[in-house]
Amino acid sequence: MTKLKNDRFLRALLRQPVDVTPMWMMRQAGRYLPEYREVRAKAGDFMTLCQTPELACEVTLQPLDRFDLDAAILFSDILTIPDAMGLGLYFSEGEGPKFKRPVRHAEDIAALGIPDPEDDLGYVMDAVRLIRKELDGRVPLIGFAGSPWTLATYVVEGGSSRDFAHTKRLMFDRPELMHQLLDILASSVTHYLNAQILAGAQAVMVFDTWGGALTPRDYREFSLRYMSEIVNNLEREHDGAKVPVILFTKNGGQWLEAMATSGCDALGIDWTTDLADARQRVGGQVALQGNMDPSILYASASRIEQEVDTILSSYGAGSGLVFNLGHGIHQHIEPEKVTVLVEAVHRLSPPYHQ
Amino acid sequence: MTKLKNDRFLRALLRQPVDVTPMWMMRQAGRYLPEYREVRAKAGDFMTLCQTPELACEVTLQPLDRFDLDAAILFSDILTIPDAMGLGLYFSEGEGPKFKRPVRHAEDIAALGIPDPEDDLGYVMDAVRLIRKELDGRVPLIGFAGSPWTLATYVVEGGSSRDFAHTKRLMFDRPELMHQLLDILASSVTHYLNAQILAGAQAVMVFDTWGGALTPRDYREFSLRYMSEIVNNLEREHDGAKVPVILFTKNGGQWLEAMATSGCDALGIDWTTDLADARQRVGGQVALQGNMDPSILYASASRIEQEVDTILSSYGAGSGLVFNLGHGIHQHIEPEKVTVLVEAVHRLSPPYHQ
Repeated sequence: MTKLKNDRFLRALLRQPVDVTPMWMMRQAGRYLPEYREVRAKAGDFMTLCQTPELACEVTLQPLDRFDLDAAILFSDILTIPDAMGLGLYFSEGEGPKFKRPVRHAEDIAALGIPDPEDDLGYVMDAVRLIRKELDGRVPLIGFAGSPWTLATYVVEGGSSRDFAHTKRLMFDRPELMHQLLDILASSVTHYLNAQILAGAQAVMVFDTWGGALTPRDYREFSLRYMSEIVNNLEREHDGAKVPVILFTKNGGQWLEAMATSGCDALGIDWTTDLADARQRVGGQVALQGNMDPSILYASASRIEQEVDTILSSYGAGSGLVFNLGHGIHQHIEPEKVTVLVEAVHRLSPPYHQ
Repeated sequence: MTKLKNDRFLRALLRQPVDVTPMWMMRQAGRYLPEYREVRAKAGDFMTLCQTPELACEVTLQPLDRFDLDAAILFSDILTIPDAMGLGLYFSEGEGPKFKRPVRHAEDIAALGIPDPEDDLGYVMDAVRLIRKELDGRVPLIGFAGSPWTLATYVVEGGSSRDFAHTKRLMFDRPELMHQLLDILASSVTHYLNAQILAGAQAVMVFDTWGGALTPRDYREFSLRYMSEIVNNLEREHDGAKVPVILFTKNGGQWLEAMATSGCDALGIDWTTDLADARQRVGGQVALQGNMDPSILYASASRIEQEVDTILSSYGAGSGLVFNLGHGIHQHIEPEKVTVLVEAVHRLSPPYHQ
């Protein structure tokens, strides 16, 4: 494959020296970009966009054409796996994702198969291959999946939820069934991410959006355990290069020590944790990725630059930081603010790498 | 005033010996109770219920008639203060509270007055007096208010919010204006809580529902600072008895040490923090209140009892724990589950107080 022209992102994840702090943004290909909204309108619906490799490739590359980002992330959705399981994913206007056939009983779980990544999710692998080709070594491509716990909340609730009533009832009353479900999801995610790596993903990230809704005990038992299992079964080297793995639990700031022992290369950090504290707590075991409050992008250019400075100095000198937001970029942010952010990270970070 | 027949709750908050661990539940007077839904329907709308002392008193006492709770909490809403400021509070079906006149600009903030608790919020003080009379010393009555930061999010957004775009833009770009607003809200909350104490509230709690959406730095500057100011200006003794103050920041588990130095008597803890860790981290400076995941109440009776046991043993021996949920009880919980919970706390806790 083509040699990478910009490998800062991968080097930072592996805590190797870099010239400037690399940066990308969660949901960088998204609704805040007018060119994305155009393709989205053309596709008709969200899943068509995900399932058409040419369109997924087009929107993946859009933010890279506008901003000097150090990584691309596959445009897709965490719910591709349960969709491939035949649960009937659909999107209802204003209410987010829904499943026609929620998974709540022993027989629902017993009926679940592990999707074959090339047969059942070939459109994702095709998108990865096409994006790699189009990127032509410009920056690395990140693959991703949802965590087993986070996927479980969607399939058990049959969609989004505020309090996870069905999921938690299953977890509390029938923990053995919940473990059976999580085990199937963990195997599915492992196969899926390994296929993304074989197709060309140069780093992978596991999004645990809802692990932070658990007690520390339940987090370890029902979320972290399965993410660790995935980490330990991933292809960590491909095509002669290491493939770093990032774990991100939103609102997981209290459990960084436990997450750092999972075997992953880096942890995503949201803005409720100071990077200085996080770095000290993980004790050099992993790199960190984060952690700007996405709402800073509503503020003025000078305020954004000031926050970049605060975050860089909070992490301090040396490699091991990938600059990112602490959550996906909001849809009402002006793209010009992102230009300010990316430039600030690249302009202000070199002193930390001397 | 009548002598208290059950003062466990106040004693635990002051870390004095108790026979059993006291318990109450956030939102214990609420929609999960059929008798509440009946009064709510009779009142017509939510604010009428809050503003009619006889009805507020009736629903405040309802959970005490069903369950062996160790405290009553005034039935009211955190938005009574901005309502009394004339911002035009109304409730829109399915969308929660809204304000007709959001506070976003310098002139909006300059126009805000500090409500007089007896003149502008007399219905709250009348409710407190009536509830005290009807309680007749059965258990203590808790008064409450929203934190300045949490109130600011509602008045700046003009209602509920997911990402606090307007509030954070104001905070980031015009911090001096945000401080001016928080200062007015802190004074209003202080007067309001002091009036509740004079009217008969025997403990007070400050609910910081949205402080957990801030960075650690912003939390200290824009939320904790104003809660500390309130704590330091409250009447801490009334009618010959100490009046304990509880601070609760949802998702504030990372900042317990800072909160414990505010001068408050107790901290509310949600379920994302282990009580053993919390107790160790606050080092005996304050009592703790919490921290059961409200979703446990969807589970079976035996699972609820098991969780009570886990929480009690996590806190360990000695006074200083008020058992509570880590957030308000959900509306679809069966009241019978609450009976199980309250009985379990009282039955399983005596060994920890020998």
